[in-house]
Formats: sequence, C-alpha cells, structure tokens
Amino acid sequence: MPISIEKQNIERRRKLLKCSLDLFIEKGYFNTAIRDIIARAEIGTGTFYNYFIDKEDILKTLLEDFAEQIISSISEYYTVEKDLYERFIETKRLTMEVFAQNEALSELYSRVAGASDPIDQSLQQFENRLIGFYSRNIEYGIKKGVFKNIPVSPIAHSILAVEKFLLYKWVVLRVISKKEMIQMVVSFHETLAAGLLAND
Amino acid sequence: MPISIEKQNIERRRKLLKCSLDLFIEKGYFNTAIRDIIARAEIGTGTFYNYFIDKEDILKTLLEDFAEQIISSISEYYTVEKDLYERFIETKRLTMEVFAQNEALSELYSRVAGASDPIDQSLQQFENRLIGFYSRNIEYGIKKGVFKNIPVSPIAHSILAVEKFLLYKWVVLRVISKKEMIQMVVSFHETLAAGLLAND
Repeated sequence: MPISIEKQNIERRRKLLKCSLDLFIEKGYFNTAIRDIIARAEIGTGTFYNYFIDKEDILKTLLEDFAEQIISSISEYYTVEKDLYERFIETKRLTMEVFAQNEALSELYSRVAGASDPIDQSLQQFENRLIGFYSRNIEYGIKKGVFKNIPVSPIAHSILAVEKFLLYKWVVLRVISKKEMIQMVVSFHETLAAGLLAND
Repeated sequence: MPISIEKQNIERRRKLLKCSLDLFIEKGYFNTAIRDIIARAEIGTGTFYNYFIDKEDILKTLLEDFAEQIISSISEYYTVEKDLYERFIETKRLTMEVFAQNEALSELYSRVAGASDPIDQSLQQFENRLIGFYSRNIEYGIKKGVFKNIPVSPIAHSILAVEKFLLYKWVVLRVISKKEMIQMVVSFHETLAAGLLAND
C-alpha cells in the first residue's frame, strides 16, 4: 500500500527535526552543518530545502513545537484542577517535568542563548510564547480576586527566569539533580504565591 | 621619579583586563585571541603570561572583580539602611544599577553561558558568590523573625535568576530599557517580599 504524500511529508519533517536535534547535542549547534543533517537523515540536499530555510529555521521550529508541548500540558491540567493556588504551584512542577522529559531540547535551549541575533530571535519567540501564557493565567487570577492586583509582566518574566536558571543548573552545569530542580522551582513558587494571594 | 614595580604591576594587570573586555565586546569572546589582547595592550607575549594563564583566566578574573563590586555596593548600603524589607527591595535596585553601569561586563556575562566547560566554571563561581551572599541575607531575615522560615536556596537562586534574565533582555536583546529592567526587578521583589514576610 503506498504511503500518502502528506504522511510522507510529516514523517520526513519529523525525521529531519529528530536528526538535527541529535546532532546539535552530539556535536554542538555551532559545529553542526546542514550537510551533516542531510547525511544523517539520508535525504537529498534539495529535499532538505523543501522543509527548512536554514539551520536557524530548524532551531526555531524545534523551539516552537516545544513551547506548544509545554502549553498544551498545562492547558490539559487546567481541565482537571480548578483551584488557582494549586494551579499556580502544580503547573510549575508540570512544566519542569516536560523540560526534564525533553532533555535534548532543554539542553539546546539552555546552551544557545546570546550567541547570535537570529538565534536570540528564535529564543525570544519561544520565551515570549511562554511569558504570554503565564501572564494570561496571572491576569485571570487577578480578575477572579484570588491574586492581588500587582504588575503582571515582572511576575510572568520571573517564572520563566527561575525555570530557565534551574534548568541550566541541571542540564548544563549538572550541579543539581532533576528532582532538586523540580523541588526548588516548586518551593520558590510557594513563597511567591504567598505574596501573590489577595489577603481577604 | 621612577614608578614602583608593584604599582606598575597593578597598572599592567588593569590595562590587560580593560583591553580584554573591550576586545570581547568588539569582536566577541570567542573571536578574540590572546595575541589580539597583547597587541592592544602593547606588551610583550611573556609579560601577558606573568599575569594570566589563558583567556578563560581573564574571564574568571573579570567576573570575580565584578562580583566583588556588586557585593561591596550592597554591603555599603547595609551600613545606612537597617530595615530588612527596605533592604530586600532596595539592594535589588542597587544591584541592577551596578549591572547597568558596567554594561560591557554585563554583556559579557549574559553572552558566554553554556558555550564551554571552563567558561561555565567561571560563571558558576561568579553566580555562586552572589547566591551565597543573597542566602546569608535571607537567613539573617529569618533569624530576626522578619522573614518566614522557608527554604532559602530556592529564593536566593530565584533572585539571581530574575536579575540575570532581565539583564539579558536589556543588554543582549535590547527589548527593554535600563529603566524598565530596574523597575521590573524591583516590582517582582515587592511581590516576593510580601510572600517572605512573617505574618506577625
């Protein structure tokens, strides 16, 4: 039975992304050339350019898909948990578990910052997606009267900042374990949530 | 009048650090070779190695001196302000002002993470110095009964994480101004402090 073209396209794209990520971790992002990716994926050069413009485009796509995965995990959890304090804490545990389960992507995210403008653009898109999502959730808590009416953007940024920093300590520096990383992120958010909660 | 050898040594070391930092910003850390530093500083090759082992040693020294500067600014402020809540907030403003006044060092700090093991070792030393200092200040607040008895390490890490992330948004991405960076750091710490304060 012939595979449909659409299915083949999806498979090829997935394979290209998978081979790229493997190479980025093995050789480093900067030491990986597009010809390495093409060789690993066993496709023609022309085929590669049907899917991606350049290496930065792959990075951007990997991070976009990753942000999507994090946000849908949290959104799914929202359908089962309605208490806003519980949500605020437990979604951070969940986020760190998604990071931990995707170790290669987490390492890539933690290693490439600051290296060049196109890379920083991709990172910023990824981070803005998460910060935007975090902001809307805090705004919802304020609207419901559960959280104080504080400036939202600094808090949304701080959530990602703490997640990112402790992820880096685990996945790059290897000075804390996965479990310690998750515990520290959760502990911080418990203190922060106490400052966020409206006092009535 | 002849310059004393000690004074000449201090001057040369300072000049080498200054030329290195300038080159790291102009050409990037990775594109700067020791011969570039030697040429810019107008010294002999042998002289360079009297002061530093390699390029990583310069980075390490620059970051050590920077941590020293941040910590002494905060310590000096402690002699004039005794209220622990005020201290908690205002020292963050002060820290960000020190970062802002040392734009080249801040950019170097924000750009080099994750690139190689020796670099990450130097960064970690810098960050551990600050995290240790932040931890002792929170512990003091707990001992005095002003702060709740919460786990200190996640909070100390979160302070540096937020400072680092907003610094990166200013000095690398240039998507927020210096003023916005300081305001966001302060606003976050106001909410966090509300969660830290003991309720009696």
